[in-house]
Amino acid sequence: MKNRKRIPAGTEIAFQGEKGAYSEEAILSSFGESVTPRAYRTLIDVFATVENGVISYGVVPVENSSEGSINETYDLLLNSKLKVCGEVNLRIVHCLVAKKNTKLSDIEIIYSHPQALAQCSGFIRKMGIEPTPTYDTAGSVPIVKGKRLRKTAAIASSRTAEIYGMNILARGIEDNPMNFTRFFILSTRDSLPTGKDKTSIIFSVKHKSGSLYGALSALAKKNINLTKIESRPTKQKPWEYNFYLDFEGHRKEKTIVCSLKDLKQESIFVKILGSYPMTEIKT
Amino acid sequence: MKNRKRIPAGTEIAFQGEKGAYSEEAILSSFGESVTPRAYRTLIDVFATVENGVISYGVVPVENSSEGSINETYDLLLNSKLKVCGEVNLRIVHCLVAKKNTKLSDIEIIYSHPQALAQCSGFIRKMGIEPTPTYDTAGSVPIVKGKRLRKTAAIASSRTAEIYGMNILARGIEDNPMNFTRFFILSTRDSLPTGKDKTSIIFSVKHKSGSLYGALSALAKKNINLTKIESRPTKQKPWEYNFYLDFEGHRKEKTIVCSLKDLKQESIFVKILGSYPMTEIKT
Repeated sequence: MKNRKRIPAGTEIAFQGEKGAYSEEAILSSFGESVTPRAYRTLIDVFATVENGVISYGVVPVENSSEGSINETYDLLLNSKLKVCGEVNLRIVHCLVAKKNTKLSDIEIIYSHPQALAQCSGFIRKMGIEPTPTYDTAGSVPIVKGKRLRKTAAIASSRTAEIYGMNILARGIEDNPMNFTRFFILSTRDSLPTGKDKTSIIFSVKHKSGSLYGALSALAKKNINLTKIESRPTKQKPWEYNFYLDFEGHRKEKTIVCSLKDLKQESIFVKILGSYPMTEIKT
Repeated sequence: MKNRKRIPAGTEIAFQGEKGAYSEEAILSSFGESVTPRAYRTLIDVFATVENGVISYGVVPVENSSEGSINETYDLLLNSKLKVCGEVNLRIVHCLVAKKNTKLSDIEIIYSHPQALAQCSGFIRKMGIEPTPTYDTAGSVPIVKGKRLRKTAAIASSRTAEIYGMNILARGIEDNPMNFTRFFILSTRDSLPTGKDKTSIIFSVKHKSGSLYGALSALAKKNINLTKIESRPTKQKPWEYNFYLDFEGHRKEKTIVCSLKDLKQESIFVKILGSYPMTEIKT
C-alpha cells in the first residue's frame, strides 16, 4: 500500500478474532499504532464490513509458512468484490499462556486454534498432552482465564497474555523457528505501481490435458516470476479446481497486461484480486 | 489395486479415527466387508504401523471435493517410505446424530471435526448454532452420548449412529450434494499397470522464474493429463513449496518414464509416491 503513511490516525481496520489476535498484530505492524483495529467474529464478517463500506480496510490471513494456506480466506476471495491492496509478513511467536501461579507441570489441557496447535505439535507432544481445538487463538486465553482449576493453558501471542493479565509459561514454542504468517490487506481498490509489486489472481482451466500448462505458459513466456500457486476445489464438480496465483509485477505494467490477456485466452475465467507492493520478510 | 480381490478375509487394514469413521467406510467400500479395519488414533500412527509391517495396508484421506486437501496426509507422505497402491472415492453423507428422545429444536451445541463442520456450515448457520470443533468426526458421537443433557449433537456418518445406538435427527446435511472424499491406499509397494492408472509424485523446483513451468513442460510435452496439483510449504524456508502432482498413466509406461526423467532434470528432487488404478466417482 503506497498510501499507507497517509492513513489518518484512528482509521478503523477490520480483523477476525479477539483482541490480541495475530491479525491485530499484523495491522499494528503494518499501519502503525495510531490506527484502530476492530475485532470481528468471523472472516465472513470482515469481508462484509469492508464490502459494505462500514470500514475501509480489512486484514486477513492467507497462508502460514509451516502449515500452508488458510482455505477459508481463499474461498471468500473467489466471490468477493474486494481487492488486495497490500500484504503483511508477520513472524509468529507462540506462547503458552496460563493463569498466574500456574506451573508448567500443572498443565493438563491446552487450548488453541488447530493451526496454532499444528505449529506447536512438537512442543505439545513432548508435554504428553492431548490438545483441544478452539475457534480462535487469542480467544483461547479468556477461556483459560474463566476456568476455576489451574491445569489449563492456551497457545496465543504474548500481547494476549498482557491484555488478559495472564502469565507466559513458555515463549517461542512453535516447532519451526521460521514461522511466518502472510496477510492480505483488503479494500475496495488495489494499490498503485511502486516498481516492486506483486499481483494475485484466480483462474480456472478446461478439464483437458495440458490446460494448466497452457495457462502458465502465458506468464512463463514473459519471464514472470510465480511466487505462489494454490489449487482449491471449485465446489461445483468433484476434483475440478480453481488456481490461485501470485506473481511479481503490477497489473498495469505492459508485460503483465499482455500476459493476462494471453492467460484469459487459455482459461475459463480469470479474476484479478489486485496488485500491491511486495514486502520483505522481517526476521 | 489390481490384487484387491485376492486379499484374504480378515486382512487387517489401518485407518485413523474411531469405529464408524468415513475412513473405515472407505475401507469396506473398497476391500469388501470381509476385511478387518483397525482404528488408530492419529494419521502418524497409521503410517507407522504400515511402515513397521505390523499391518499391510493403510487407508488415509487426501482431499475432499468441497474443502480441499488434508494437509497432514500430504505432509506425512513427504517423509514416508510407503507407496500409494490405490485410491478410493467415497460420497460423504453427513448426519446430525443425537441421543434418543432428543429433538432438533433441543440442539444448542454441535460437535465434529473442523472439515465436517465446514462441509455443513450452511446447515449449522441456519440452525443459528456455534459449532464446537473436535479431533474426530466419528469420535464426536460418544462425546454426545456421554453428555447428561439432551442439547448436544454430533455431525458424523449414519454408521456411527448405528454403532452407538444413537438417533439421526437429519441426514445429508452437507452443503454440497456432490461431497466426496478421496482416500489413498498405502502399502510398501504400489500397483501393477492395468491400462487405466494414475501416478502421484512430489517435486520441488528452484526458486527462479519459470521453474514450475519448466517442470510441468516435461509432462505437457507428452500430453500427460494432470488431475491434481497442490503446493505445500517446505517448512524449511518461508514461502518455498513442494508440489504434489497426480497425473494419468503408470510410472512403468514408456511415455511416463521419459517424462519423469525430464522432470528430474528440471527439479531439485522428485519423489514417486506410486502408480495405482484410477477409480471412477460413484454417485
